[in-house]
Amino acid sequence: MAITPQHTDYSTWYLDIVAQAWLAEHSAVRGCMVIKPYGYALRDNMRIILDRMFKNTGHKNAYFPLFIPKSYLSKEAQHVEWFAKECAVVTHYRLRANEDNTWVEVDPDAKLEEELVVRPTSETIIWHTYKNWIQSHRDLPLLINQRANVVRWELRTRLFLRTAEFLRQEWHTAHATAQDAIEESRRMLDVYYDFVHNFLGMYAILWEKPAHERFAWAEATYTLEPMMQDGKALQAWTSHFLWQNFAKAFDVMYTTENNTKEYVWATSRWVSTRMIWGLIMAHSDDKWLVLPPAIAPLHIVIIPIAKTQEDMDSVREYVQPLLDLIKKESLTFYSKYFDKTIDIECLFDDNLHHGFGRKATQYELQGVPIRLVVGKKEMESWCVEMNIRRSWEKKHMEMDKLLAYIDKALYKIQNDMCTKHKTFSQQNTIKVDSYEDLKAWIEKWFVLAHRDGTKETAEKIQTEIWATIRCLPFDEAGDLKQEIGTCVYSWKPSQRRVVFAKSY
Amino acid sequence: MAITPQHTDYSTWYLDIVAQAWLAEHSAVRGCMVIKPYGYALRDNMRIILDRMFKNTGHKNAYFPLFIPKSYLSKEAQHVEWFAKECAVVTHYRLRANEDNTWVEVDPDAKLEEELVVRPTSETIIWHTYKNWIQSHRDLPLLINQRANVVRWELRTRLFLRTAEFLRQEWHTAHATAQDAIEESRRMLDVYYDFVHNFLGMYAILWEKPAHERFAWAEATYTLEPMMQDGKALQAWTSHFLWQNFAKAFDVMYTTENNTKEYVWATSRWVSTRMIWGLIMAHSDDKWLVLPPAIAPLHIVIIPIAKTQEDMDSVREYVQPLLDLIKKESLTFYSKYFDKTIDIECLFDDNLHHGFGRKATQYELQGVPIRLVVGKKEMESWCVEMNIRRSWEKKHMEMDKLLAYIDKALYKIQNDMCTKHKTFSQQNTIKVDSYEDLKAWIEKWFVLAHRDGTKETAEKIQTEIWATIRCLPFDEAGDLKQEIGTCVYSWKPSQRRVVFAKSY
Repeated sequence: MAITPQHTDYSTWYLDIVAQAWLAEHSAVRGCMVIKPYGYALRDNMRIILDRMFKNTGHKNAYFPLFIPKSYLSKEAQHVEWFAKECAVVTHYRLRANEDNTWVEVDPDAKLEEELVVRPTSETIIWHTYKNWIQSHRDLPLLINQRANVVRWELRTRLFLRTAEFLRQEWHTAHATAQDAIEESRRMLDVYYDFVHNFLGMYAILWEKPAHERFAWAEATYTLEPMMQDGKALQAWTSHFLWQNFAKAFDVMYTTENNTKEYVWATSRWVSTRMIWGLIMAHSDDKWLVLPPAIAPLHIVIIPIAKTQEDMDSVREYVQPLLDLIKKESLTFYSKYFDKTIDIECLFDDNLHHGFGRKATQYELQGVPIRLVVGKKEMESWCVEMNIRRSWEKKHMEMDKLLAYIDKALYKIQNDMCTKHKTFSQQNTIKVDSYEDLKAWIEKWFVLAHRDGTKETAEKIQTEIWATIRCLPFDEAGDLKQEIGTCVYSWKPSQRRVVFAKSY
Repeated sequence: MAITPQHTDYSTWYLDIVAQAWLAEHSAVRGCMVIKPYGYALRDNMRIILDRMFKNTGHKNAYFPLFIPKSYLSKEAQHVEWFAKECAVVTHYRLRANEDNTWVEVDPDAKLEEELVVRPTSETIIWHTYKNWIQSHRDLPLLINQRANVVRWELRTRLFLRTAEFLRQEWHTAHATAQDAIEESRRMLDVYYDFVHNFLGMYAILWEKPAHERFAWAEATYTLEPMMQDGKALQAWTSHFLWQNFAKAFDVMYTTENNTKEYVWATSRWVSTRMIWGLIMAHSDDKWLVLPPAIAPLHIVIIPIAKTQEDMDSVREYVQPLLDLIKKESLTFYSKYFDKTIDIECLFDDNLHHGFGRKATQYELQGVPIRLVVGKKEMESWCVEMNIRRSWEKKHMEMDKLLAYIDKALYKIQNDMCTKHKTFSQQNTIKVDSYEDLKAWIEKWFVLAHRDGTKETAEKIQTEIWATIRCLPFDEAGDLKQEIGTCVYSWKPSQRRVVFAKSY
């Protein structure tokens, strides 16, 4: 059960955590993963919060087909370039038994007239549908979210970060004006930020992607790229302003208030199971998973010291009033967009098959923030042994005082995690003014430096030192930060510093 | 916007309701549907309740791959017979641009070594995974639920009832003994019944499927088949006891407490978007959708009478305190397995683009239980106009008294719907003792009659009068109901009456 330390091998450390906290595993199908119950619960908690945030900003859920007709992907060559190359192609719709009924084979008579692609992303099928949904300015804006599995035939996969099949939420919105669409993209970046900061406990600055790093159809891409513990950037959240590109490809026009016809303006964005990868890489340590209470599947575990059913029953009786009280408790985290509370989840592990040691280790590995231990000694003195996972605090606590303490402890864990990640991110970000310094710091830092804004320079730097321009940062007002300088590579003039970093 | 009356054409009536209440539509991809926001919200409310029920009975969510290697489907010929014939087969993993870059085509070099089938059901891939998860009796029971899309290449599709792709929850549980597995199957039938009865407002008796109507791998299948308004049965909920069939096919054994090796016992069951079909067919009427408040996406709509932004603002100011109060209200429905309350969802429709008439019609069609209208007149006399959709009650009501009235009205609607469906189902069920009577009543009724229990007789009856044996009913104690008699077809002895009905 040993976990490889981060500094020995960051990549093996990650895989060890994922395996030993029972989050996910590779499946028998190439590139596809099995998300195990604890990993799925984590993902579901994130989904529930995001869902509420999107509802509160006027978005509605809908569902579109898994399959995309091949011809849809030919509508724009760029689209193929980005998504359609490495994908799962359905060519037949029937299997048949072989002659002696011992095996199945593809029925050659059941060939599809037009091949179907398992959606690598859904813009095409959705905009084909929007054509019938949008006639007039009265139908706009149309703000739709889809929860779906998507497939990209990735060559190199890593659990949660990059798999052939993955689960995500994708938003596809339609607007009457460019201004409306840009506002939606920016507003949703703010929603993401709220989620990342207040729930995932991560720090990130708001920024825009440089043109050459954008999704092909996007005219502007806003992004949040938090820093991982190895100083690399994770692109986990992007919000795209798509101009009228999809409206033109699928002929989606609306009648304006002045009775003229206009193409519709679009945005899209998505959040995937990759979030879990980011969460682990940002917070967990050499020994185990560390989870922010705002999204932890389990906040408190009560482990009884009991070897017989009789002992177990008496511990249960002792803690039952506590369990009942905890059930009524909830947590409220500050958020502009989430207006609900979060239930405190508490498990009394009464399994007699597994011993105390195994249980204690397992819940520690899984990052359960608070562990309570109850045995004969505790019952005799009306207390429990309390262990706070993050601070290593361990003490006996009277039953009466426990509940108030637990609430405070959970809020404190959330705040501490957030502060720690912010401090780490800021301490590992540096301004430099020469290419030599950029090279020296890029290995484990975010580097703020000037560049001339050309694709050429960006590509040369990428080839030479494997660092990319992650983003153009915003100032406090949400505008691009201005600062005159000279490019560290070409010495040509520059209007702003950008963030260079290594990434996944 | 006219809806075809049920008695004119039940099938067209259904399609009219689905289209005009904005629930779903056919997509450009053969057999696949688009679930529109209102339909998806309905589906999501059902999912949320079921999810909680399954959590409360110890089940956990997980996620397994979309693709199944073809060879897995060859493990048992029966499995192919049932599921694997009409399915989507992935044969290639790449597209390429044609020579002049104007079109995409399947890259012949990217042929898969083994074809993948888009899951028609997940038993095979899940049991392949369970082999690694189950070693000892300590690992059992394993109670897993998956929310997923599945694909069956159906020839004749109907929205929600039968589509090529559909969304469902599927449970796959593993147990140490046959007894444990049977208990799980029966208990989950009880959970379904709780859901159907207390939330969907439908009546159904608990029963078991006859052997020749079971899922191929099942040794016992428990089912609920509520009666639709045309007297037909809907098979929407089945719970299977699968014996050790999958454990043997995928070699899943466990070590017992006595240190021997045994094959694991299995159950499975599922609930799909077909539930929405049942809901409409059971409750809705000639004019519009009728929804039980327990799962309605929207309980109350407030339609302002306002043509200018100024008028709209003053109505909003008038109703804001009411909106704030409603936000804090919730509904509690009796259930053994659902321990949460349901938020009352209220919409203030402040869209100035659409007129009052259009809004009123739309929300009626969508079955919103309570409609409040507020204009100048109402504001002057401190009241609202209240319309209860189901009872046609319409009156002006003082603001102070409104909230208490609304709560009562919503509970009453739920109860009335449940009672109505029970009365209807019981009134349209009859006991007969001759084949002539069976033939006479079967068109629009459930018929309780004796049969000899052979597959032959069942098939002959099915061929002659298009009726099938839907189930063997249980008595109060949950055992199969005993009653000696003679088969209406063969006059051979019979141990019990069964339910004959037409079905979808």
